[in-house]
Amino acid sequence: MNVLPTIAFKKGAVELIDQTLLPAEYKVLRITKVEALCEAIKSLRIRGAPALGIAGAYGLLLAVEEKWRRFDAYYFDEDTATLDGFPSVVTLEAVRDHLGRAGETLRATRPTAVNLGWAIDRMTKVCRREWVSAADMLRALHGEARAIHTEDLEMCRAIGRHGAALLADGDNVVTHCNTGGLATSGYGTALGVVFAAVESGKKIHVFADETRPLLQGARLNAWECVERGIPVSVLCDGAAASLMGEKKIACAIVGADRIATNGDTANKIGTLALALAAKRFGVPFYVAAPTSTIDPAIPDGSAIPIEHRAEDEVTSFRGVVSAPEGALAYNPAFDVTPHDLIAAFITEKGVVRPPFGL
Amino acid sequence: MNVLPTIAFKKGAVELIDQTLLPAEYKVLRITKVEALCEAIKSLRIRGAPALGIAGAYGLLLAVEEKWRRFDAYYFDEDTATLDGFPSVVTLEAVRDHLGRAGETLRATRPTAVNLGWAIDRMTKVCRREWVSAADMLRALHGEARAIHTEDLEMCRAIGRHGAALLADGDNVVTHCNTGGLATSGYGTALGVVFAAVESGKKIHVFADETRPLLQGARLNAWECVERGIPVSVLCDGAAASLMGEKKIACAIVGADRIATNGDTANKIGTLALALAAKRFGVPFYVAAPTSTIDPAIPDGSAIPIEHRAEDEVTSFRGVVSAPEGALAYNPAFDVTPHDLIAAFITEKGVVRPPFGL
Repeated sequence: MNVLPTIAFKKGAVELIDQTLLPAEYKVLRITKVEALCEAIKSLRIRGAPALGIAGAYGLLLAVEEKWRRFDAYYFDEDTATLDGFPSVVTLEAVRDHLGRAGETLRATRPTAVNLGWAIDRMTKVCRREWVSAADMLRALHGEARAIHTEDLEMCRAIGRHGAALLADGDNVVTHCNTGGLATSGYGTALGVVFAAVESGKKIHVFADETRPLLQGARLNAWECVERGIPVSVLCDGAAASLMGEKKIACAIVGADRIATNGDTANKIGTLALALAAKRFGVPFYVAAPTSTIDPAIPDGSAIPIEHRAEDEVTSFRGVVSAPEGALAYNPAFDVTPHDLIAAFITEKGVVRPPFGL
Repeated sequence: MNVLPTIAFKKGAVELIDQTLLPAEYKVLRITKVEALCEAIKSLRIRGAPALGIAGAYGLLLAVEEKWRRFDAYYFDEDTATLDGFPSVVTLEAVRDHLGRAGETLRATRPTAVNLGWAIDRMTKVCRREWVSAADMLRALHGEARAIHTEDLEMCRAIGRHGAALLADGDNVVTHCNTGGLATSGYGTALGVVFAAVESGKKIHVFADETRPLLQGARLNAWECVERGIPVSVLCDGAAASLMGEKKIACAIVGADRIATNGDTANKIGTLALALAAKRFGVPFYVAAPTSTIDPAIPDGSAIPIEHRAEDEVTSFRGVVSAPEGALAYNPAFDVTPHDLIAAFITEKGVVRPPFGL
């Protein structure tokens, strides 16, 4: 399966596909300021927990470029991994301070997705080592960001490999939100499992929850399936239960934005309802996510912060108003699925079944 | 609470609010042909099980007007209940044949809603009586259609009265689809319960599922609440489960399109998922519907025919495309909620609790 280049760090800028324009338009944004990257994250131009981790790491590289770039000469050459011209007067502490602030700004853009903070923490750890010079530290930070990116791709492939064994030829699989290449470095978690099954010769039909309010399922998961020639049917979020009741579904596979150590899982709003339907009708409900999505500081779902988003995401649809003036809206971006509804976690390390002690 | 005139039969034509244009535009259509009425029903310009019953009855009056109207003189004067000028050469059998065909055409427009067929059956029974003349029969048919309309309003008031007792001051209530005046003669079933509670002095906050794909909740239920000054929050269908999990909801009240004798209930797609969430979180799940929604010929939900609608209802949103070309769609208009998920039926005859033998 093709890997779609969701995000890249090239010549001092972050490049990413503007996912809000898909499927109507495929456009790559070139972002040169942290503020613009934060806007892109908040506006969901890039989204998906693993992709946000990569965006966070690259965001810190961008913060350095933005502040100390001179004469349009880029400090870091991707091909030769050289970092020339970094001003020697800039102290390690100055860079650390600057990256500390930039990291907090980036972290605050999406409070639920743990991978964003996880990647920033990884970069911060590199900062804290005893470097001889700021340039040395920056070289290491570039290396760490590339590692986060590469590991994500390897992690997706491993999740796909482990998960594909759970699917049989001819299976119908329900997905929620976008969990493919666009949500990651380019291959996917839950949808990566489908890709890996198809690569191994199985025929799979994807039933993609459209995933209101922002329709990442209809717009992005369906687009990724169509692009790869996998048959896909879009359905309203409320329709999956009856499809499961008709015994037409082999399993549901979703991603995760944050997983508590007891297995309670925060994911895109609507996931909980899907899990309840799966439980009722005996359909296995799988969560496919890298182990970096597990938050060791969170014992159960009640402690996961839930981001609430703007009301007009619900009261309109891509600019078309759907509710009357005077109506309010309730718009949490995520819900928490209790661990008893989850048949297994599909991670890069293997399939983890209950009891969960993650 | 104001009664909104959803549908009327005036001067030989059916007048109805075009509900597809709400909340942006309030427009009353004047329909003079059965074919146009069928189109209006299929396109959901009028919808809601009780309202469809009234539309079916008026549709048969329209069939007579369309075929035998002469010189723009209307046969039936609503105010004086006189029916002058009906051609005496037209036989009873001719009218019965014509109405039989028109009835089947109307009945086929929405296969799940039982009230449509129920109203046509009531009109057909009147046809079968031994009338002296076609004019006599037509007078009786006009009377029967008016009775169906009036009884619906009385029925809604009674449902409201019985249901209001289940709500407490300060309750938050989740609704699905539109179940207010627009779905009935003008007052409502599930939303009528809210109206009656508010009339009795209770403060109620409505959480209206937007109800994809056609957004009758966001567009119509929210509009009816705003029009009547009742606070309303619109939410995505997938968000109700987490709201219930947060213990913020006193109960859910939905309508019904057809009820099997064991209590299994067909209603707008998404109802089943809402009922499953209510069950999980101990929230009472009520179905508010007239007893005419019970189909004595249907022992359980598996025998209820489910209408599937056009794919573009799911792959687009009021003309804005949301899914990529090449994606299919799964679009059942209804699902069936098993009776074990239903805490009680609120009917015009009272509140019916399990075990149901309807």
